[in-house]
Amino acid sequence: MGLVGGGPGAFIGPVHAMAAQLDGRIDLVAGAFSRDPARNAEAAQGYGVAPDRAYASVEAMVAAEAAREDGIDFLTVATPNAHHLPAARAAIESGIAVMSDKPMTATLEEAREIVALLADKPVPFGLTYTYSGYPLVREMRARIAAGAIGKVHKLVVEYNQGWLAGAAEGQQAEWRMDPKRAGLGGCIADIGVHAFQLAEFVSGHRVSRINADLGSVVDGRVLDDDCQMFLRFDNGARGLLMASQVMTGEGNDLALRIYGETGAFRWSQENPNRFEWLKGDGGMEVVRAADPTLGPVALRGTRLPGGHPEGLLESLANLYGEFAMTLRGEPGSLVPDANEGLRGMALIERAVAASREQSGWVDFIV
Amino acid sequence: MGLVGGGPGAFIGPVHAMAAQLDGRIDLVAGAFSRDPARNAEAAQGYGVAPDRAYASVEAMVAAEAAREDGIDFLTVATPNAHHLPAARAAIESGIAVMSDKPMTATLEEAREIVALLADKPVPFGLTYTYSGYPLVREMRARIAAGAIGKVHKLVVEYNQGWLAGAAEGQQAEWRMDPKRAGLGGCIADIGVHAFQLAEFVSGHRVSRINADLGSVVDGRVLDDDCQMFLRFDNGARGLLMASQVMTGEGNDLALRIYGETGAFRWSQENPNRFEWLKGDGGMEVVRAADPTLGPVALRGTRLPGGHPEGLLESLANLYGEFAMTLRGEPGSLVPDANEGLRGMALIERAVAASREQSGWVDFIV
Amino acid sequence: MGLVGGGPGAFIGPVHAMAAQLDGRIDLVAGAFSRDPARNAEAAQGYGVAPDRAYASVEAMVAAEAAREDGIDFLTVATPNAHHLPAARAAIESGIAVMSDKPMTATLEEAREIVALLADKPVPFGLTYTYSGYPLVREMRARIAAGAIGKVHKLVVEYNQGWLAGAAEGQQAEWRMDPKRAGLGGCIADIGVHAFQLAEFVSGHRVSRINADLGSVVDGRVLDDDCQMFLRFDNGARGLLMASQVMTGEGNDLALRIYGETGAFRWSQENPNRFEWLKGDGGMEVVRAADPTLGPVALRGTRLPGGHPEGLLESLANLYGEFAMTLRGEPGSLVPDANEGLRGMALIERAVAASREQSGWVDFIV
Amino acid sequence: MGLVGGGPGAFIGPVHAMAAQLDGRIDLVAGAFSRDPARNAEAAQGYGVAPDRAYASVEAMVAAEAAREDGIDFLTVATPNAHHLPAARAAIESGIAVMSDKPMTATLEEAREIVALLADKPVPFGLTYTYSGYPLVREMRARIAAGAIGKVHKLVVEYNQGWLAGAAEGQQAEWRMDPKRAGLGGCIADIGVHAFQLAEFVSGHRVSRINADLGSVVDGRVLDDDCQMFLRFDNGARGLLMASQVMTGEGNDLALRIYGETGAFRWSQENPNRFEWLKGDGGMEVVRAADPTLGPVALRGTRLPGGHPEGLLESLANLYGEFAMTLRGEPGSLVPDANEGLRGMALIERAVAASREQSGWVDFIV
Repeated sequence: MGLVGGGPGAFIGPVHAMAAQLDGRIDLVAGAFSRDPARNAEAAQGYGVAPDRAYASVEAMVAAEAAREDGIDFLTVATPNAHHLPAARAAIESGIAVMSDKPMTATLEEAREIVALLADKPVPFGLTYTYSGYPLVREMRARIAAGAIGKVHKLVVEYNQGWLAGAAEGQQAEWRMDPKRAGLGGCIADIGVHAFQLAEFVSGHRVSRINADLGSVVDGRVLDDDCQMFLRFDNGARGLLMASQVMTGEGNDLALRIYGETGAFRWSQENPNRFEWLKGDGGMEVVRAADPTLGPVALRGTRLPGGHPEGLLESLANLYGEFAMTLRGEPGSLVPDANEGLRGMALIERAVAASREQSGWVDFIV
Repeated sequence: MGLVGGGPGAFIGPVHAMAAQLDGRIDLVAGAFSRDPARNAEAAQGYGVAPDRAYASVEAMVAAEAAREDGIDFLTVATPNAHHLPAARAAIESGIAVMSDKPMTATLEEAREIVALLADKPVPFGLTYTYSGYPLVREMRARIAAGAIGKVHKLVVEYNQGWLAGAAEGQQAEWRMDPKRAGLGGCIADIGVHAFQLAEFVSGHRVSRINADLGSVVDGRVLDDDCQMFLRFDNGARGLLMASQVMTGEGNDLALRIYGETGAFRWSQENPNRFEWLKGDGGMEVVRAADPTLGPVALRGTRLPGGHPEGLLESLANLYGEFAMTLRGEPGSLVPDANEGLRGMALIERAVAASREQSGWVDFIV
Repeated sequence: MGLVGGGPGAFIGPVHAMAAQLDGRIDLVAGAFSRDPARNAEAAQGYGVAPDRAYASVEAMVAAEAAREDGIDFLTVATPNAHHLPAARAAIESGIAVMSDKPMTATLEEAREIVALLADKPVPFGLTYTYSGYPLVREMRARIAAGAIGKVHKLVVEYNQGWLAGAAEGQQAEWRMDPKRAGLGGCIADIGVHAFQLAEFVSGHRVSRINADLGSVVDGRVLDDDCQMFLRFDNGARGLLMASQVMTGEGNDLALRIYGETGAFRWSQENPNRFEWLKGDGGMEVVRAADPTLGPVALRGTRLPGGHPEGLLESLANLYGEFAMTLRGEPGSLVPDANEGLRGMALIERAVAASREQSGWVDFIV
Repeated sequence: MGLVGGGPGAFIGPVHAMAAQLDGRIDLVAGAFSRDPARNAEAAQGYGVAPDRAYASVEAMVAAEAAREDGIDFLTVATPNAHHLPAARAAIESGIAVMSDKPMTATLEEAREIVALLADKPVPFGLTYTYSGYPLVREMRARIAAGAIGKVHKLVVEYNQGWLAGAAEGQQAEWRMDPKRAGLGGCIADIGVHAFQLAEFVSGHRVSRINADLGSVVDGRVLDDDCQMFLRFDNGARGLLMASQVMTGEGNDLALRIYGETGAFRWSQENPNRFEWLKGDGGMEVVRAADPTLGPVALRGTRLPGGHPEGLLESLANLYGEFAMTLRGEPGSLVPDANEGLRGMALIERAVAASREQSGWVDFIV
């Protein structure tokens, strides 16, 4: 695995490195960590990457690695959104697989380009919608597909953070609130797409109409910091999406509730090793990680016995584990693909436009 | 106290009777419990009301009681919504005070009539928005008014039930889903107004614009069973209101989250003896019932030491206790009044209309 | 109902009055609230008791009431422990039924006297072990009796309070820590017996051996403020009892966990409207108040639909409701009786002695 | 790092491997994974260890590695308890540092031998009392040392599991319940010592007296499966230790509550990213992972921002990270050492003996 981004001080790059290597089946061996040569070398040393495989650019990396016998078999993209497309393009054109952070690109147009590139030159392409790697998220998905709660008729997904509630913003906030680097959307692009992807992934249904209310509560902020959205799904189900970065004091409260005709599931990322199963007859079960009744997809992503908490790194590691399955030619990966990436970018663009123009309900066809 | 409604098999009448009498300062002494004479007599006996004070109609009750030296000093209205106005009208015209269940009436026009009646002949008039009686709800209100969380900029209120998730509905559902008896709104009138009142009551701000999405997920149902609403408050705060009776397996999950510039409060009715106080600096406190730091309004509504749970009956009893203060001429009651009732009815009517006509954002001026 | 104790400023007397009268089937009509005539009259007025039925002593009350056509049919004893016996004796000798607060008396010898008095002159006698009135406590008991968790093999009961953690103690603490008024035990008598009674009541098994470790952590305190006890039950089950009033910051954290061969129940008084059912196969259910699957004893003690919290007053009201059943000659009451009271007093005396003498394991035969 | 144990099918070996390597600063490069050559080779491949560094025995490993320029700098011992001493001895005698799983050995005598070996030939020696690596455990320890809750006067530690509740036991249970391989203690040695170590580690106080009640609830089981223990600490504090493997349905419920004169902390391993801080004045705070108010030890063991759960692997990784600090000659490691190991072994031996002989209170001097 090669890594683009993740230089000294970066948050998400080291997270990818830890997660990818957690299970001992993937090695980080090359990178273009920083445009600054000294910082690039420093990062390489930190990651245990040989100096000669710390490249000045992603283009240099994919060229050199593609030429090596033992070159990387995939590139992980962990840069600000505006650099996702160039990195992915370089890898795809060199025949190197790609694991990209989300959202897939900075604009919908760029997302279409990735889809087109892949049509032209197919390589495995995955998106690290990290939260979809939690075993219990996958268990809910499997149970809903098997009919455990009947026809889904209502869904509420929310992603509540508070770190942008004040005017003062730190380094992480900087590029996320700068349209040049983050793209059109602020909160919607940073976390709203996670909520959207989780809703579609678990429910097995696609959003078909939206009514969006994006805005900012902090004076002078250009991009949205708070999003509210009514949803309709392809089966007629009603839905609600909330995402906010100004819910003062909230940490990373991504939560999903799905209601079907005969039951419901409730899950919260801050306590990820369980979900609640409400039943139409009044009963309620708590389904816990590593429970022997879990299905194979959940269990293969579980390293520890019940009661031993696993967390976000392990969830992301599950995505890497499945991406490695794909690279080995094994079926069964649930890693989100470029089409899911395209849907996410379409959501951002449509929601931003519809909210600005106060369009009310608009169709969501991608 | 006299009671209209609450005959054998009724749910809410006995609840009012228990709550009103809990603290030993109010006695239920008269009633028009049922139009059926035998059931009316049976109810009177159950409540310990003398046979000659069980009346055939509310009109008969207020006439007779107004003429007694020891007649009732207020009437409690616990009938289906369509009978709220006639009962209130009879009492007001006889100079008898009124505690009415919510929503105040079946239509906005009827609500205006009550306001007009009271303007003409002022008597104490209260609405049993039960959840506003919880001590910790009142504490949040007091703290927000005192600036504990800074300027409110985001609010999420939700009221989730599941009892109408299936097609089969019991007796309680019957009149609530019948437009003739419930009025224009289904879920919005039954529980949505509770959420709306709680949001305004605690935040101290009034809703000024709404964008409503009401609908039903059960085939053939005429009234709404699921409501989603974007809100704007008079201070510019952004808000979200959810109310649903088809969230399968949910009991009575009324919950409020209010975010200000420097802190936030989270409270849930199903665990009502505490709220969480999130702070902008990362800290979090849990404020518990009977805590010595609570203010006087919360403490006067608390009967037991910390750790001894109080519930919904005690919350409703707090409203009755304050209504009794008003009857004695004491100031300080926070019982919702007819103007709050009018706002609730306006919300129902506007939300139903705006949703049906897909109006998008509409002003909410009452 | 007549009440002894509960004068102005008392805590538990008004609680009994509210709970007994909650369901409208019991009226407080007489009392000996205070030895001080002015305070006695003041209390009577507060309770709505006629001035001529506010008596100077419990002896005067039972004499006068026994002579009335409409005299009280039972006496509620809500005094400090040292006055329980005289009050109960007076009532029993007058043929008046008794509901007494716990522990039954101040000493084991006094408890034996009550049992002897009742053998001589049987009247209904109940003890307000309040927590045994919670519907879900009764549901656990019924399910265990029906074999839902198999043979019980381990039990942990704890009752954690913190109000005596500091040296300074308020009025409530005063008599509880005074051996003359509280009896031999401090924490063990005040709350330890609650934990003991709950354990026996729910498990359906009796404690047969104990190993007690009572002590005090606050300098100069004569009575115990912290109790730890190993238990063995008559079926061989192992158990642990903790009760403490120096667990700083704890409110009223009474909690029970019972483990059988095939399942387990966990319940906590501070969140009383649910219990957890752990299953041997890894599953876990949450059983909630008002759930239609609950048995008749739980449901008859439930006033509100699911999701509407009930609390401690309602739990105590359930005991009064069942005591009233007994007075009416109806079977089925689960109110603790004098034999349970005797067991509680024996526990206090044995635990205090065994701990002082460091006896290790001692038989517990009552 | 070299690993002894952790062959195919083993549980704890791979956990050590993942945790040690998580932060990219330690590499597993050698091992004696299994006595079976084929399984040894298979394991080596799985761990990415070169075939020539998969040794037939720990003795062969330390001999060969000590002779290499790039030999391992420490040995991780993850075998059944009976093999801890030989492995540690081999490493110590070769001058190789040791990280050993707990309990340190199978008997107290063996533990004394390790202490003696280290006195003779000092090398860094650590014990993976995994739970002490959680950031919030370390934060509680630091705050107690700084006086945040005043003098500690009561402590409750419990470790509840249910996997041995039934008679049928799987592979993991096998050696743990076999005295030849597990040593004298069953539950006390497997998990009781974790609870004991956690109590001493966080409180900063040492146990000075114990009164133990060990036993088994499953017929025919030789070693204890349920432990209850009264404790006294060197400062006079009262304590209680529970550990059980027959609490049906429990997963891995290690929980600690510490009460001081002015405050208390409550923490639970199954929800490890927070603890509750109860205050003597009635207040309650929730301290959350990654909170900026945390001290340096907690923050250096935190990889992710607030709200992103970390789990057991990360906790264990923190111990490895600090052990690596020691190897690099940096101060500040909190990894438990051989003296803590000795105390744990003493606890097992004394508790087993005192319980068998029903000794009541015994001094605990190590």
